[in-house]
Formats: sequence, structure tokens, C-alpha cells
Amino acid sequence: MNNKTVELDIDTIRHSTAHLMAQAIKRVFTGKEIQFGIGPVIENGFYYDIGIDHQITETDLKNIQEEMKKIIKEKLPIERKILSKQDAVNYFNETKQLYKVELINELPLDTEISIYTQGEFTDLCKGPHANSTGQIPMSFKLLNVAGAYWRGDEKRPMLQRVYATCFNTKDELQAHLHFLEQAKKLDHRKLGKELSLFLLDPVAPGSPFFMPKGAHIYNALVDYMRRIYKKFGYQEVITPQILESSLWKTSGHYDHYKENMFFTSCEEKEYAVKPMNCPCHMLMYKHFKYSYRDLPMRYADFGRIHRYEKSGTLAGLTRVRTFCQDDAHIFIQLDKIQSEISSLMEMFFTTYRHFGFNDIIVNLSTRPEKKSGDDATWDIAENALKSALEKSGYPYRIKEGDGAFYGPKIDVEVADAIKRYHQLGTIQLDFQLPARFDLKFTNSKGEEEQPVVIHRALLGSLERFIGIFIEHVGGAFPFWIAPEQAVIVPINDAHLDFCKTLQTKLTSLGLRITVDDRNESMGFKTRQIQKTKIPFMLVIGDKEIEGNSVSARKYGESESETLSVDALIQRFLTLDQEKVPKELR
Amino acid sequence: MNNKTVELDIDTIRHSTAHLMAQAIKRVFTGKEIQFGIGPVIENGFYYDIGIDHQITETDLKNIQEEMKKIIKEKLPIERKILSKQDAVNYFNETKQLYKVELINELPLDTEISIYTQGEFTDLCKGPHANSTGQIPMSFKLLNVAGAYWRGDEKRPMLQRVYATCFNTKDELQAHLHFLEQAKKLDHRKLGKELSLFLLDPVAPGSPFFMPKGAHIYNALVDYMRRIYKKFGYQEVITPQILESSLWKTSGHYDHYKENMFFTSCEEKEYAVKPMNCPCHMLMYKHFKYSYRDLPMRYADFGRIHRYEKSGTLAGLTRVRTFCQDDAHIFIQLDKIQSEISSLMEMFFTTYRHFGFNDIIVNLSTRPEKKSGDDATWDIAENALKSALEKSGYPYRIKEGDGAFYGPKIDVEVADAIKRYHQLGTIQLDFQLPARFDLKFTNSKGEEEQPVVIHRALLGSLERFIGIFIEHVGGAFPFWIAPEQAVIVPINDAHLDFCKTLQTKLTSLGLRITVDDRNESMGFKTRQIQKTKIPFMLVIGDKEIEGNSVSARKYGESESETLSVDALIQRFLTLDQEKVPKELR
Repeated sequence: MNNKTVELDIDTIRHSTAHLMAQAIKRVFTGKEIQFGIGPVIENGFYYDIGIDHQITETDLKNIQEEMKKIIKEKLPIERKILSKQDAVNYFNETKQLYKVELINELPLDTEISIYTQGEFTDLCKGPHANSTGQIPMSFKLLNVAGAYWRGDEKRPMLQRVYATCFNTKDELQAHLHFLEQAKKLDHRKLGKELSLFLLDPVAPGSPFFMPKGAHIYNALVDYMRRIYKKFGYQEVITPQILESSLWKTSGHYDHYKENMFFTSCEEKEYAVKPMNCPCHMLMYKHFKYSYRDLPMRYADFGRIHRYEKSGTLAGLTRVRTFCQDDAHIFIQLDKIQSEISSLMEMFFTTYRHFGFNDIIVNLSTRPEKKSGDDATWDIAENALKSALEKSGYPYRIKEGDGAFYGPKIDVEVADAIKRYHQLGTIQLDFQLPARFDLKFTNSKGEEEQPVVIHRALLGSLERFIGIFIEHVGGAFPFWIAPEQAVIVPINDAHLDFCKTLQTKLTSLGLRITVDDRNESMGFKTRQIQKTKIPFMLVIGDKEIEGNSVSARKYGESESETLSVDALIQRFLTLDQEKVPKELR
Repeated sequence: MNNKTVELDIDTIRHSTAHLMAQAIKRVFTGKEIQFGIGPVIENGFYYDIGIDHQITETDLKNIQEEMKKIIKEKLPIERKILSKQDAVNYFNETKQLYKVELINELPLDTEISIYTQGEFTDLCKGPHANSTGQIPMSFKLLNVAGAYWRGDEKRPMLQRVYATCFNTKDELQAHLHFLEQAKKLDHRKLGKELSLFLLDPVAPGSPFFMPKGAHIYNALVDYMRRIYKKFGYQEVITPQILESSLWKTSGHYDHYKENMFFTSCEEKEYAVKPMNCPCHMLMYKHFKYSYRDLPMRYADFGRIHRYEKSGTLAGLTRVRTFCQDDAHIFIQLDKIQSEISSLMEMFFTTYRHFGFNDIIVNLSTRPEKKSGDDATWDIAENALKSALEKSGYPYRIKEGDGAFYGPKIDVEVADAIKRYHQLGTIQLDFQLPARFDLKFTNSKGEEEQPVVIHRALLGSLERFIGIFIEHVGGAFPFWIAPEQAVIVPINDAHLDFCKTLQTKLTSLGLRITVDDRNESMGFKTRQIQKTKIPFMLVIGDKEIEGNSVSARKYGESESETLSVDALIQRFLTLDQEKVPKELR
């Protein structure tokens, strides 16, 4: 028998490794009653849900992993057997695998049930599998254990889900483990805590509290977007958050999005907390009359929105119940879409590059089968989007039929530092909402016409963007947006006055500078400051005071540089100016 | 009989004038069935609620007023008569005044009921009254009619409430009418519409939509406060809006403020939309440990809050259901209060003067009978407040016993352009909330101690402040905060390029400048621009282009001034710099 694993496809390997793990678990916990749930293949590996009266520990995982390797070396044949449904039920009842019995019972009566046996271990499985445990490559790693309700149902027992990663080769495994290690280091939840950016509290699930440094980042993003808005002709508005259900019925959210909305009531009327800003902008538009000369009109809104998400799915800043979008709605004539999309692509690319996202994917989604609006309108809109994208010179992919029923869309993904893609921006044409709100403008012929609405966001949700950005820069924010840009450290108390004078001078220029006057050793302070990832540490001693200079150490570098105070100021102001993208200067 | 009215006090005059009005109404609408409700004296006059099957018009008001004057000239004696409760009920039943019957029926059985008769008219009234209609001075004016439910109950009939103003003398009346006229001109609801600052829509009662110009003012206030915060050592945080009821139970809002809160639910738990930021800040404090060296810690928050107000009481920006405060909470040691209050008074006075409010009243409210915290703590706190106020040199009034049960407070009122006082700022010491949340810090002796919390706001609600500020400046905003600072007007199309170049130059300096390139006459444009109250109109013709200058006309002035472009830029930048109060420059 040829043991070369390359003949097995990766799903088979992962599946067989899952059985291997189950067998090893039975051996490690000999004498304990174990109920197996499901053990599917997932991205990069598999998991298996285990019911056992014992909290599985890190040490257990190591032992299980060792046992798995032993079983590989035992080269046990893996044998497939077909049973009738009744025989299968009987078998798993006898072996007390009641979750398996439950699964089998849900299958049609005439289903042929396959079971796989390797040594003393038998499991229900569709297969396929390796022919022998010896065929399974030793390129897997058990990662962690998490609680999971049987069948995802809170009313059923809580099982222990053992996650493992598994690849064809050890090199692939190592590469993935390295990626996981990096992702763990960059995790915005961990960095958010370490850098005092935000916190979460059970009284408000999915609703981050931004600490002063996190609030600084948040406000800096808003400021950034306002600069962009000024350049591209947007007008900011501020709209209510709680609006009567009648509005959400007009907009269609009440029929199609109700499950994700929070409701309240007042004076016998039902109100909803807004999950989106669009209906507010439609309403504002409707309060006035417009001619074609007034269009395009661009309303931007940093309104806070709330959407229900299951508490189990909430995660840090990236999966929340409340957030703020860099949201805008553009009211535009159908024949002006192309130039607007060109402007938008310029805004998008300027912005992503500004934040250091240079690997960008653009997707264009075209008309789906079920759609509102006639084909002629769709033709004009889709062609306008295509022309704008082609004119922009950026490559793009077409997702045929993937548009919303109310209009075609462009979405933009960016890759972060460890090559994970995140969808950030979206441009969504909408023929439907202007019709629902009966919006009009007077065209150049003096006739009433319906505008098209473009929904669009660049950063998407500020909360989520902050989460992604923290991970992208590993918490080491660029100078222009860093909550603290430099910390000044006196070598001893005699140097403190100079430090404070320097701080005042830099602060008066709008820079964010602190002095570390703690009574601690320089070594301790240096280590502490490195952990805060502040862009610059400026050390002041006799030599520096004498030369009216600073010893400046950039975050991440091991060497310091002596700079005159004037040169430092010049350098800082230049770096700070990066808050304005060069395209806007 | 001496007809000199000066002998009657103003309440008696207003009361007798109310009867006079009721009598005149009966005469003017002879033949119609009229039911009178109540007719009390109010500030500056009185009203009377009337049930009549006819919409009372402006013309009716004039006729009623004329008839009132006639009745004065008739010098009808006003006679008081005492009836038993039963006789009174019978009388008003016979005369079909059923609201009066309802009022009498609610009085104790043995009440002596007084009625007053003048000529053919008799009304239920406690009195006192003039002895004759001839004694009533002709210094009143019927103002307007508004709908009012009988006894304020939506389920009872809607009556017509006729408002009148009434004084001792015609001079006083004239002064008050002049005030009313001014107040009407300055009304922020009217100006808000004329200047496109904000709008209201029935789908969101009491929840203003800020149009771009209003949003500019709103954001400029936030920017102003952020400048102040930087100077005074505040840290901005961003906190959730929807939090579990358990939090509001801890804070006490659930027991004491529930009627004003909006509730929603999620995954079988009850949540409230926050009516205040304080509990969020208490919670953030509680997540960390503090030493006395970390205090005072000042958390500022521009969080949006929601409070229920009856729809009948809502008005423009000044009585709303949702608003944002320039809110902050200071966590402080009891013995550091005095210097903090001194800083606060500096912040307050700097701010009010910056917005042109120079007439300021400071009130200090001391311990009420029912209070939390011991007398020693109250002594320290009140003395600290007094010392700080005395040290500040600002006069202040003491309101004995007017403090909240949880601590003493300072509130600050300012007078607007027409001498109406508005409470804006508040400083509220709180011994209660830190106890409820069990907040601690380690004092210099190494012991755990409870901080005091100071709640404070300068502008109060941004919405309300904007309303008051619009009225204070009559919509003519100072240059530094005006949504549009200047409009450039070409005399004809040949001058347009120069205008656009100038606009670009000024805009690149951060100024807010538009060009009026409409194809309209100069006279028309000038009139239109005056209505917008933009601080400067800059006219460009041949002469200006030749001299690289502008003809600048300041809002409210009739003369223009010729300025070189350089001088204009210098002037504008100086004016714009006023966004930073001089105390902070």
C-alpha cells in the first residue's frame, strides 16, 4: 500500500483526521462516557463536538495530539460498511452515541447509512476516507476548545468543540500556524485592551465604549472624511435616530428588515431606532423642490445606527449592534452617474491608500433576475458603472446577477497586512427608494423626473474600520492619527522643566505630546513606552538641553537620532500634515 | 367713584379684563351657544377657553376688542353675589354653562360660591374684581387663539383658547407688544426655516433634522467645546446609547426617571435608550483602578440622548425629545473641589462671553431637607463652591435648600438680546452616584476612598443652545461660526473668473465662501443675500479686478468698503480666528 498522502484530497485528509481525533479522545479519556456530536471539515481544518463530563484542557489537547500520532503509526485499516437505517440506529444506541442516533433518525427510511471503522473506533460518516490511518499526514494541530450548543440550540446541551487545523504538508501547516500567530498578535480585541482604545461591557452587548484614545481615532476618521467631503462637494446633515414605523413602512425596511431593528413606543405609536440613515435623507429631500441645476446633491451623515445581531455572533469592533457609517446619499440624474462614479472611485482609492491599504479589489454586481426598474434603466446604469471603472483604469471583476433588486452595485475589498481581505466600501445605485418616497426634480425640459439615489460608504462602519485598521497596523498607528504622537522622557528630574517647555511648544502647534515624569528607571520606562506603540520617544538629558535638541527614537527602531528642536518640530509638522491626503493638499 | 386704575393690582385688572372679554365674546357672537371653560391670569395677561361652533378669526379678535372698549365706556357696575353650591349648580345649569357646573361639582358641599355680574353677563369667580367695567384700563390686546383640550385631557372636547396681554398702562402694553414683535422676528423656528438651518417632520416629533447649515453650527459648537476641553484637561469618550435596564436600576434612573425614558427589548432582556450619559461614565470608571494621582479625571461625551416629552409641549429646538449635551463627568477628591469649580467658572464665563452673552446670573443651591450624604460632606462641598465663587469675583445668588438630594449645585443663566434669561450651564455635585456604583480610588494614605462626581454642561443641550443663539443674534451669526462667511457677486459674467479664483483662494485658507453666479439683477441678488444674513457680500466689477480688490459690504451696513484682496484675506483670517476665545490663544 502506497502511503503517499498527496493522493488524498485535502477534505478527505481533514475528515479522516477528525475521526483520528475522535478515536484518540476515546483512548485518552478511557472509562469516561463520551458522546460525539458532529465533526465537519471547515476552512483550514475541522472541528468535532464532544459531550464529556470533563473540561478539556491545553494538556488534554497535547495528549490527544500525541495519541493521534500513535494511531497513525499503528496504520489501522479504515473500513467502510453499509447499514440499513434501523441497523445503524441499533448500533449507535448500543454504543450510546445518542446524537448520532438523532441524526440518523432524521434521514429518510430507505437511506443507506455508511459507517467507518478503524481499530476499536467506529463512526457514522458519509466518507470518503483514507484507507488506513497510516495514510494520514502528521500535518495537523489541535488549536482550542470552545463551547457549542448541540445543533446551535440554546435549549440543548452545551458540548465542547475541539478545533484543529490540518494541511497536506507540514510546510503548509507551519505557514498557517504562523498566520494564526500573527493574527492573534494583531487581534484588535487584544490590542484594544492593551492600548486602552475601547472596552465592552455586558450591559450593552455589541456596543463599544471608546476610551479617550479610541475616541480620538474615531473622531480623526470623521475629520478625515469631512476633509474628503469638502473636496468632493458633500454636505453634512444630522438626522434623528428614532422615527415612526410609518417611515419604515414607506422605505420598505419594516417589511424586509424588521428582524434586525429595535422598536420602542411613544404616545401609542410605534417607533424604530434607525438601522440606516437613508429614509431620513429621502425625507429631507422631499421637504424641498429641486431643479436639475441643484443636482447632484450629496448628503453625508455620521448618524449612529443600531442593528440587531445575535449575541453569539458579536465580536469586538468588527461585529457590533451599534455603529456609525461614513454614510452618504447622492441624489442624481440618471445621465450624470458616470462622472459621479469616477469621482467616487477617486475618493475610494485616495482613502484606502491613505490608510495604507494598497491591495484593492473592485467588484461590480449586475442585475439579478428579480429586479425593480426597466431594462433600459439598468442598461444605462450598468454601462455608466462599467465606463467609470474602465476610465479609472482600476481592474475590476464582474459579478453577474449579484446586484440588489433595486440597482447595480460596486463593492471594494482591501487586503490587510496579513493578506486577509475585508469589504470596506460600497456604492449602491437605487431606483426603488426614490420611487417609494416619490422624489422628483424638474429636468432641463421643465418636466418632473425621478432622481436616482446612490448609497455609498468608503470606510463602511467606523467601528469595524477601526478594528481592521488596528489589526492592519498592529496598533502602531501612523503619526498623523496616533492618539499620542510622542512621549518626552527626562533622564532625571533636572531635565523635567525642559521637557515641559518642549511639550507646551509642540502642543501649541496642535500636536499630541505627553511627558513621562514617573519616578521609574529609564529601562522600565523605555519598555513600557514601547508597549504603547507611540510613534516617537524623545529622551532629554544634559546633552540634549545643552544642544537644544532631543534624542528621538522612532517606534520599532532600536537606534535613536539626535535632532535639534527646530528640526524635530519641522519633522513632526510634516508628519502631522499627512492627515490630509496628498491628493487634497 | 374714582376711576383711576392704579388702585387695582395688576392681577385684578387682568382678571376683570378676562371677564370683560368673555362678555364681549357673548355679544359679538349673539345667538351662538357659547360654553366658557377657565379664564386664568397668566404672565403678562390672561386667557379664556371658549367652546363655540365657529373658528375664531383675526377679525373676530378685533371685533371682540372693540366691544370690550364699548363695555368699559358703559361703566357697568360689577357685582359680587354668594350662592350655595346647589344654587350655583342650578344657575349654571340653567344658563347652560356646563364646564362651570363641572367645576362647582368638584368643590366641597359647604363651599360658598361667588359669582360676579356685570350688565347681562355673569361668571363664576373667586374675585376680586374692579367695581365697575369703567375702572378697567384700556391697556390690553387680544393676541391669538390656540386649541386647548378641556382640562388638558385629550379625551375631552377641544376648546379655543383666546390669549390676551394686559397691563396697568398703555405705555407698559406698548413696551410689551414691542417685545413680542421682536421675539416673533427672532423666533428660531421662523429663522431656522428662512435660513435653512433645520426642519421638523411629524415622523419624528421633537427630533430636529439639521440641514447642512444647521449641521455646520452644531459641529462648530462641538469643535469649540473640544478646544475648551483641550485647554482644561478633558478627555472625550464615546459611549453606547442603548443599555440594559439593570444599569438604569443601579443608577436609580429606572426608579426615578422611567416615565421619561424610551425602552426596547432584545433577546428577552429590557434595554433603555439613554436619557443621560452619567451611568456610562460610571461604568467606564469602574473598569479600571485609580490612585489619587489619576484624579481629577474628566470624561466628556457628545452622546445623543433621548427623553420623552409630551408632544403638546415640543417646540423647535428648545423643547425636544432628542439632543446632545456638552456633557462631562469629573471624578474628583472631595478636597479638590474648590480649584475645579474655579476652573469651571473660568470655562463658563469664557464661553458665554465668547457667544456674546454678557449678562450672566450665577445661582448656588444648597442642601435640601431630604438629602443623601452627611452634613460634614455637605459642609465641605458647599464651602468649596462658595469659596470658588467668591474667589472668581462673580456675584452669585444663594438658593437655600434648592440643591438636589444628592448634592449642591450651581446653575448659570444668561440674558439674550431682548433680556430673556435662559438657564444654560449647570454644575452638579453628586455624592450618590459614586456610592451606587461603588466607585473607589486609593488616596495618599493608601486607603480606598470614594470620589465625588461633578456633572456639568456649559451650553447645556446643543439643540437648545442653537435655538437660543439663533434668537440672540437674530440669525446673523458671527463670522467665525457663520455657515457661509461671504458671498462673492460678479457684476456681470466677465467678472466671474476673478470671483471663482478669489473663492478658491479663500476656501483654501479654510474659509466658507460661495459665488452667486445666478443670472439675476444686482438689486435682486443684494436683497436676497441680505435675507440670508451672510456676514459679507463681496462685489466684483471692472474697478475691483483692475485694483485686485473687492467691494465688501458687511451684513447690516448700508455702505461698502473697498479692500485689496490681501487686506480682505487678513481681515477674514483675523475674524475667523475668533473661533478660538482670546483666553485660549
